[in-house]
Amino acid sequence: MSLQELLHSPLRVVNLGIESFKDTCEAFSPPAIQVDWRPPAEVSPESEAILSKRAARIERANQKALEIILSGTPKLVGLDIARNVIPGMRENLILHSGPPITWERMSGPTRGGIMAGLVYEGRAATIEEAEALAASGEIEYAPCHEHATVGPMAGIVTPSMPVMIIQNETYGNLAYCTLNEGLGKVLRYGAFGEEVNTRLKWMENTLYPVLKAAVARTGPIDLKNMIAQALHMGDEVHNRNRAGTSLFYRAIAPAIVETCESKADAVAVLTFINGNDHFFLNLSMPACKATLDAARNIKGSSIVVAMCRNGTDFGVQLAGTGNEWFTAPAEVPDALYFAGFSKADANPDIGDSAITETGGLGGFAIAAAPAIVQFVGGHAADALRYTYEMYEITAAESRMYQIPALDFRGTPTGIDVRKVVERNRVPVIDTGVAHKKAGVGQVGAGIVSAPMGPFAKAYDALARSLQ
Amino acid sequence: MSLQELLHSPLRVVNLGIESFKDTCEAFSPPAIQVDWRPPAEVSPESEAILSKRAARIERANQKALEIILSGTPKLVGLDIARNVIPGMRENLILHSGPPITWERMSGPTRGGIMAGLVYEGRAATIEEAEALAASGEIEYAPCHEHATVGPMAGIVTPSMPVMIIQNETYGNLAYCTLNEGLGKVLRYGAFGEEVNTRLKWMENTLYPVLKAAVARTGPIDLKNMIAQALHMGDEVHNRNRAGTSLFYRAIAPAIVETCESKADAVAVLTFINGNDHFFLNLSMPACKATLDAARNIKGSSIVVAMCRNGTDFGVQLAGTGNEWFTAPAEVPDALYFAGFSKADANPDIGDSAITETGGLGGFAIAAAPAIVQFVGGHAADALRYTYEMYEITAAESRMYQIPALDFRGTPTGIDVRKVVERNRVPVIDTGVAHKKAGVGQVGAGIVSAPMGPFAKAYDALARSLQ
Repeated sequence: MSLQELLHSPLRVVNLGIESFKDTCEAFSPPAIQVDWRPPAEVSPESEAILSKRAARIERANQKALEIILSGTPKLVGLDIARNVIPGMRENLILHSGPPITWERMSGPTRGGIMAGLVYEGRAATIEEAEALAASGEIEYAPCHEHATVGPMAGIVTPSMPVMIIQNETYGNLAYCTLNEGLGKVLRYGAFGEEVNTRLKWMENTLYPVLKAAVARTGPIDLKNMIAQALHMGDEVHNRNRAGTSLFYRAIAPAIVETCESKADAVAVLTFINGNDHFFLNLSMPACKATLDAARNIKGSSIVVAMCRNGTDFGVQLAGTGNEWFTAPAEVPDALYFAGFSKADANPDIGDSAITETGGLGGFAIAAAPAIVQFVGGHAADALRYTYEMYEITAAESRMYQIPALDFRGTPTGIDVRKVVERNRVPVIDTGVAHKKAGVGQVGAGIVSAPMGPFAKAYDALARSLQ
Repeated sequence: MSLQELLHSPLRVVNLGIESFKDTCEAFSPPAIQVDWRPPAEVSPESEAILSKRAARIERANQKALEIILSGTPKLVGLDIARNVIPGMRENLILHSGPPITWERMSGPTRGGIMAGLVYEGRAATIEEAEALAASGEIEYAPCHEHATVGPMAGIVTPSMPVMIIQNETYGNLAYCTLNEGLGKVLRYGAFGEEVNTRLKWMENTLYPVLKAAVARTGPIDLKNMIAQALHMGDEVHNRNRAGTSLFYRAIAPAIVETCESKADAVAVLTFINGNDHFFLNLSMPACKATLDAARNIKGSSIVVAMCRNGTDFGVQLAGTGNEWFTAPAEVPDALYFAGFSKADANPDIGDSAITETGGLGGFAIAAAPAIVQFVGGHAADALRYTYEMYEITAAESRMYQIPALDFRGTPTGIDVRKVVERNRVPVIDTGVAHKKAGVGQVGAGIVSAPMGPFAKAYDALARSLQ
């Protein structure tokens, strides 16, 4: 490059010194690059050698995976009852968040959610009966993720629950998610009892049919576009969904009015959605699931297609390693706890909602949502920093999801397990926190770092697959 | 201060050097202070001497004015027809934006809006007839601001138009504003014709009664709270109102469903609001008007209570100088022009919407709305810079309206005309741009600086009032 060319190139700052100087530079474009070298995470030298030797092949596989992820077009196409539509759903099966787990190893909130689910299904009259049945061996458990489904927190899906159906229009595949119950005493945080059950029944009998008819009237609702708009309105669509919920509400309300015979039901449904700023989470999650599932089974790809937690283990899946799970113990979040609660009350990280981070949203897009620090703790500058750090472990930038404060830079998308391991930097996840005991509910929200374990195992497995 | 104390105080950076270094510091708290000294604007040494001598008295008056402005609580309390509620409204009177002006000196869009208004009122059958009537001397014109009203762009209010009624609950005073027509060919941008008139009639016959009944059902809607939320969602509530519109929609939709007898009308109203992201502008403006009007007539106060433009002149009023107007020619905005238009097509700055800046919103709060640069031009960093600059000419920070990206710092509120003049820094206004010819409509949007002239005149007048 001639001096002439150099002077006409955009300025880039490479900072080898105090990181805070780079931070201040970064707040203004052009972005600065921090050479933040850390020793790689511990992996076998053999794996490293294989992945290095196969780099070109991995690159080709990744380009294919990334193109699929970037071009996915998730749309809400309808609603139905879980047993009618979720592949492999059956009367004795209960789905849960995270990687596979047995009743014996399940955490309090997962058990609480299952117990609430069995009461809701009419399989048990009391929570005690439900607990006995759940532990009896009669009920089968499987991860949502293995049934094209995602669920926030405990992620419990029982056969009678209504689910929203999201189609990735570009690739045809479907994903499913239950309807968001709101905050307070709710099943997904492991709460149970009269209040929880009454709400679930209302959701089945009123919310579900009203929404189903409205979505049939509107036709497919473009969630990719809605998420993109929400990022321009201060959401990261994991822990902050006020804008997404507003946009969905605006889109669906006229159709609800048109299709709902009962004025009282229409008002109740609109009031319910208006009262729950997390409603859109159960749309952003399956939107990401539908987008990422299309990129599964691309041999050689080091791109992560699932990160999830069942409250005991943190699980990871790669595009290049099929249905294999890589797990390690989930960590207890350093969170902003609600009054009266502390870290001692908190369950380890739980939920499929990290699918948003896997899709380049949530903690990865948190620079778009500075107001979230009120909910999860920290300063606005932390939100910028988290997003900048995630560019270091991702292989692409979204073409559609942008961060206005970074001059509309695409969000960091497509976690490359090689970068996670070699740069020794784990994904940040912007999450809610459940009480560790069944039956209590949410106790806080915060930012949690994924454990390195699952990524290191996935790294080794990818190497083995390319030997 | 001992060294011990100094070390335990929050760090403040005073930068006398290159401003960009301060900018980068500012993006992270604690904020840096730029000593950006400019020679004062030209004002008489006599005025300067008087205001300096009366500084303590001005300070007391300002504290009173600021307390009123900061504690205002604007709420939407109802709707009615202009002639029934706007004080002094009469059949031959048409209100317009900005300071007083005669037909002869009016700009194209103001004339176009008046012509459209006369056709809408049935006072003229054609635009040609309307123009002749408007120029005949038979019609009286007065500023919206003198009738407790504000109007965006041309700001035309005729007797039959529906208006929203905003009450400042703390002080009891009322403010009025018409309903927002949306974008495209609309009266407020000086457009006329069949399309404009048909929409205005629909607004009078359907939108107005439906909204009136719904607001009667909800009871007063807290606009202060809604604006505060909108700032957390990327609006500055002048040129970006997508979040405000969404929040208003969420609040009003259930009441529309409950109160509207005709399903078709309810759907049409919801669809209209959903299709117009500027709907909330006509609520944020009168919210600011109701807030600021309560601080009028406080002798000695140098706080600005109105900035507005009629497309020819830019006008300013102070809390301390009663109903006197201080004016100078309005400037043509350096804007982002729509395809096919340029600055040569643009009318000078127009509209009462600068009441948002006067109230600490709009251009003053633009750091909350980085996505707006897509609409008005520039980079996200410019949005931060504009807001920082406005702290230099304001006397307070909002207790309610916050900027998440600045760690929830209150927006710069209460323009002190002394700071404008002595620091030689004028307010920035984030505005839409009308075509200079009647009948065309919007051609762009951008950031415009207020002219210094009205502030210099106000400064002198304040001095005279304290001689």
